[in-house]
Amino acid sequence: MKAIVVRPPSTGAEITDIEIKPEKLDGLSIKILENGVCGTDREIVKGLMGEAACPPGDRYMVLGHEAIGILEEDGKYLKKGDIVMPVNRRGCGKCLNCLCGRPDFCETGEFIEAGISGMHGFMREKIIDYEEFLVPVPKEIRDIAILAQPLSDLEKSFDEIVSVQRRMIWTCKDGTYNCRKALVVGTGPIGILMGLLLRSNGLMVYMANKREPTEKESKIFQTAGIEYINTEDDFSGVLMSGLRFDLIFEASGGTADIAAKSLKILKNNGVLGIFGFSSTGHAELSSEDLQKLVYRSIAVVGLINGQKPHFQRAMLRLSEWNTIWPEIMKELITKTVNINDKVSVMKVLESKGPGEIKVKITW
Amino acid sequence: MKAIVVRPPSTGAEITDIEIKPEKLDGLSIKILENGVCGTDREIVKGLMGEAACPPGDRYMVLGHEAIGILEEDGKYLKKGDIVMPVNRRGCGKCLNCLCGRPDFCETGEFIEAGISGMHGFMREKIIDYEEFLVPVPKEIRDIAILAQPLSDLEKSFDEIVSVQRRMIWTCKDGTYNCRKALVVGTGPIGILMGLLLRSNGLMVYMANKREPTEKESKIFQTAGIEYINTEDDFSGVLMSGLRFDLIFEASGGTADIAAKSLKILKNNGVLGIFGFSSTGHAELSSEDLQKLVYRSIAVVGLINGQKPHFQRAMLRLSEWNTIWPEIMKELITKTVNINDKVSVMKVLESKGPGEIKVKITW
Amino acid sequence: MKAIVVRPPSTGAEITDIEIKPEKLDGLSIKILENGVCGTDREIVKGLMGEAACPPGDRYMVLGHEAIGILEEDGKYLKKGDIVMPVNRRGCGKCLNCLCGRPDFCETGEFIEAGISGMHGFMREKIIDYEEFLVPVPKEIRDIAILAQPLSDLEKSFDEIVSVQRRMIWTCKDGTYNCRKALVVGTGPIGILMGLLLRSNGLMVYMANKREPTEKESKIFQTAGIEYINTEDDFSGVLMSGLRFDLIFEASGGTADIAAKSLKILKNNGVLGIFGFSSTGHAELSSEDLQKLVYRSIAVVGLINGQKPHFQRAMLRLSEWNTIWPEIMKELITKTVNINDKVSVMKVLESKGPGEIKVKITW
Amino acid sequence: MKAIVVRPPSTGAEITDIEIKPEKLDGLSIKILENGVCGTDREIVKGLMGEAACPPGDRYMVLGHEAIGILEEDGKYLKKGDIVMPVNRRGCGKCLNCLCGRPDFCETGEFIEAGISGMHGFMREKIIDYEEFLVPVPKEIRDIAILAQPLSDLEKSFDEIVSVQRRMIWTCKDGTYNCRKALVVGTGPIGILMGLLLRSNGLMVYMANKREPTEKESKIFQTAGIEYINTEDDFSGVLMSGLRFDLIFEASGGTADIAAKSLKILKNNGVLGIFGFSSTGHAELSSEDLQKLVYRSIAVVGLINGQKPHFQRAMLRLSEWNTIWPEIMKELITKTVNINDKVSVMKVLESKGPGEIKVKITW
Repeated sequence: MKAIVVRPPSTGAEITDIEIKPEKLDGLSIKILENGVCGTDREIVKGLMGEAACPPGDRYMVLGHEAIGILEEDGKYLKKGDIVMPVNRRGCGKCLNCLCGRPDFCETGEFIEAGISGMHGFMREKIIDYEEFLVPVPKEIRDIAILAQPLSDLEKSFDEIVSVQRRMIWTCKDGTYNCRKALVVGTGPIGILMGLLLRSNGLMVYMANKREPTEKESKIFQTAGIEYINTEDDFSGVLMSGLRFDLIFEASGGTADIAAKSLKILKNNGVLGIFGFSSTGHAELSSEDLQKLVYRSIAVVGLINGQKPHFQRAMLRLSEWNTIWPEIMKELITKTVNINDKVSVMKVLESKGPGEIKVKITW
Repeated sequence: MKAIVVRPPSTGAEITDIEIKPEKLDGLSIKILENGVCGTDREIVKGLMGEAACPPGDRYMVLGHEAIGILEEDGKYLKKGDIVMPVNRRGCGKCLNCLCGRPDFCETGEFIEAGISGMHGFMREKIIDYEEFLVPVPKEIRDIAILAQPLSDLEKSFDEIVSVQRRMIWTCKDGTYNCRKALVVGTGPIGILMGLLLRSNGLMVYMANKREPTEKESKIFQTAGIEYINTEDDFSGVLMSGLRFDLIFEASGGTADIAAKSLKILKNNGVLGIFGFSSTGHAELSSEDLQKLVYRSIAVVGLINGQKPHFQRAMLRLSEWNTIWPEIMKELITKTVNINDKVSVMKVLESKGPGEIKVKITW
Repeated sequence: MKAIVVRPPSTGAEITDIEIKPEKLDGLSIKILENGVCGTDREIVKGLMGEAACPPGDRYMVLGHEAIGILEEDGKYLKKGDIVMPVNRRGCGKCLNCLCGRPDFCETGEFIEAGISGMHGFMREKIIDYEEFLVPVPKEIRDIAILAQPLSDLEKSFDEIVSVQRRMIWTCKDGTYNCRKALVVGTGPIGILMGLLLRSNGLMVYMANKREPTEKESKIFQTAGIEYINTEDDFSGVLMSGLRFDLIFEASGGTADIAAKSLKILKNNGVLGIFGFSSTGHAELSSEDLQKLVYRSIAVVGLINGQKPHFQRAMLRLSEWNTIWPEIMKELITKTVNINDKVSVMKVLESKGPGEIKVKITW
Repeated sequence: MKAIVVRPPSTGAEITDIEIKPEKLDGLSIKILENGVCGTDREIVKGLMGEAACPPGDRYMVLGHEAIGILEEDGKYLKKGDIVMPVNRRGCGKCLNCLCGRPDFCETGEFIEAGISGMHGFMREKIIDYEEFLVPVPKEIRDIAILAQPLSDLEKSFDEIVSVQRRMIWTCKDGTYNCRKALVVGTGPIGILMGLLLRSNGLMVYMANKREPTEKESKIFQTAGIEYINTEDDFSGVLMSGLRFDLIFEASGGTADIAAKSLKILKNNGVLGIFGFSSTGHAELSSEDLQKLVYRSIAVVGLINGQKPHFQRAMLRLSEWNTIWPEIMKELITKTVNINDKVSVMKVLESKGPGEIKVKITW
């Protein structure tokens, strides 16, 4: 079948015909409808993965961890014709978190991830998969459903943040989170989806990037009641203004020093959630910074990967947003290319386009 | 009455006669029996506090936040003759955490602390205090009860760590914490008490310092089943050995870079709890360090101050240890000086003695 | 202004002109758009409340605790023209739960409730209220937004059930609640909304009533994937079938013996949530019933009243359902009467109509 | 080897020689030192179990689920000569709670229990068991360590109660449980141990039985600061006095109607924890009783079985009590009989003696 294939550690990807041995004989056949493209895909295409990432026995890997498809046969609960999204990370089968369906907290590190490590991805005509890893897509949100995969990571992130904050009373005097100020650093798809998610949970949200917002971004932020901060000045304006945050969500994938700067603008009992991967720079924390972390009861948490409960919630979140923010939903898919348009597909796999939020490939 | 007084920001302390206006007219009178001395007291004596630390209207402050005393009158629940320990931090009266008796998580930062900030301390003949801030001391552990104040901070710390780890399954296959490996950095009173506390909670405990252990330390660690690691080599031995931890508790008050080094030897889902204050150095985290923090779901938490529930638990913890580790309990109070021996009192307030674990002043 | 007024303990209600002293001088003026009618309103009209229920100083009470209105002036966050729903229960101002915005768990019992006890209700032209008690209504769901008040009670109920079940692992092998079987007893508005809410949270849902479902009910249940059980036989069919539940939500307001019968069909670790008030009968539990409750680790929980966080979530839940179940949403408001149609208003206040789910009064 | 054997459903027990096939070949050999006798043992001796309770393949069962013994060989962590207590319930190996070491919440019901169901008990010269099920006994509390088995059930019970109460704020204004009033119904060993445990956790404790307290009980209650209530009048005195409770722990094993009566004297947000098995009577709840359960947010919870974390905590709890209540500890073991004194052994297995708290059999 046709598939987008990488051969790590070589750079580049190719659309080619492969035959995947049907290892999941008792799984369900799913015809792929769409794939989403994200930064991780592009890093793999750039050759940042080692050969060890390939599924056991193979020297190549099908790319792709964001997909929706249509079921070609009946399952126990799902029916032929249902649209579904496969969960992308699968557990190690050994540690308690994986046994309880939470390989996002895998202790052994022996989990596998479709299109990333140890398991062929979803950028291919068909996949065979077990029903337990398939999440139904409400047909009314099919157009935007591909966003549920990145959004699942954020549903998990917010869950974890709230869980960490149960160490104290973190709700406000009215029982909500309405009094909490959150700063989301980075305005890529992850940043924007997290900003919207935090608004849905009642928080006051600020978003930051090192430039003026695009027109599209301004529209989104205004609709959702989000404030924008230009941090070209490296947060010195924020520092001076006295604006302080209960939660900072680092999603810029920028230089590591954002983590250090964040600690200076967190309130007592604040949380710094780090999502995604800084690729350059370093964070330098003085002993005063660490002292503040202690006497302010600050928590810093690494946030990664949503699981099935978060995929299910993400589908409902998109349904909710489809009602309250239809004008925002229209803006999030910024480009769609068809698998037959090889040049365009390769282009979107290689680099982020101008003004891009989410790109999808249709089959 | 006789009291040990500091006049921040001046250095030094003096034993002098003062008259404290009886602001808590409806409080109970307590004759002080003993005070504990800790690093914070010595920092204040060194002049590290500003004048603003003094109680409102005063230009001096009575030192001391660790004390036990004897009640001189009946309260509602407590009786004349009961031995009690006063809780040292008092809430702001405004934020929800303070209203719920948890000024350890004060949001406003407007709490006060006896002998540290905004409130006269306990190193004086008598204090007047409200019953709600007094914790009964079982008479059977009177000799070691002064340890309950620092131990309360650690009961709270462990509580908070467990609370943070509820973000996942952190208990072991037998429902306990027995499979969890903890490293306590620093072998001062805080380090030792935390090591014992973690053992009581079932964890495997390693303690580290940049030298060989003293004979006393060796005895304590052996009795409690704690392993010792000499980290003179700056953790390079640990790094190479492959020994990794689920929890690292930084209590060395050493250079800030211990925090950075700790991240390298934490397991997946691990926690770095920072207690006490690094006074020098800085922590430099590379972007790779931050990446690991993310894909390993690491949490870093600033830990400070125990409150009344933790004082109560600390009293019972000491009672427990009194039964199972009587030979350790004998080693923890390394020096006792009487308030009338001015020279010795000044000496213990100025610097830590060789082999010191906890020093107390008797009245 | 025009208002629907009751004079407990007299039966009946009247539409009359009243002047309410503007006790909340610094509140915001809200023009009422719609009120919902529920069973509690009808019980009050039937004279089941004592005179003590009237607001202090008054011998009458404006009825109504379900309302949406339009803001007539700007608040701090809300703007003139915003549609809002007022929260109906207000705290005692004394206990910790009320101080934390959770009078649903008021300890003193001294809370007040609009249109029910100690506070004039919302069935009147205008109310003056504080911004903190107003929940914004997304304009896209204005037609069904009145359902957010009863739904808030159910969001709270599910929250509390999940909280109670944290005593163990209650999520399934895939981390979701998909394997959990819930039975909702009663198919009034509360039952139906709870059935939908449980479906949204992934549970398998069964609904029960002592008759065949109406056509409308059948349509709703089929759309949402809910099974229906006719329990005219007093649960004997269920008992014999071996069908057992993880959660039973009693919302029938029927005879008390349903609680007793429920215990017999709960699985190990199951929960019986009781919502609403049985008015007749009694529950007889044998010693064997109680033994089962013990060795099966059963919990029984009384569930009541949602607060502001639940109102906010209810608004988003309706938005979610508006996308995925538009055909169900159309069925839930079964009747709308205008305040000027006095005869119809009185009729809907006196008794439940045939096939009624939710009735609303427009102004 | 010598063992106390039952042949359900026959009544009676015998001390006889049996050969138990060494099914746990890789387990550790433990020489039994002492067994505790409890009500469940006596019910089995009375013939209340079916033959199905016997271990697979056997038509008899060794009795006993409370034991301490001495290790006869080295384990991985434990050493020859260590005193240990075996955990008595073992998981089904299938459900998530059992996989996580918590068969107290077994979902399948397929757990086994030493000396009760599906597994030979501990009343025999030797057992072979796996290290993971062995809990070290501090040598300093060897005399009272047999109490750790029933106490483990209560550590779990209090844990579960606190977990259930996390649905709201249940701590007091000082962050403790000191303001909470608990009533323990029943003054058998379970009742007394629970009373002490609740005191250790800071609650105000009342204990009730249908008679005047014995001298021994009075001494215990006075030492621990527990109030006693004679409920010969069937709680009518309590009802009239207005005394109300935040927690009622039913441990009387009496008539089922105590559960019903308890609901009438619970405060808002209260919990009724039911432990042990009512053998007669029934609880009749009126619709008013159920209404109160709802509007007071009452929870009723079945409480059963402690697991390894609770055994470990129970050992430390006894160590704590050994320090603070040595005079109480002396009173709890009311009789010791040796296995060679067959007549006395049979007598203690058949019925509870006058003034008995805990009886143990030595080997």
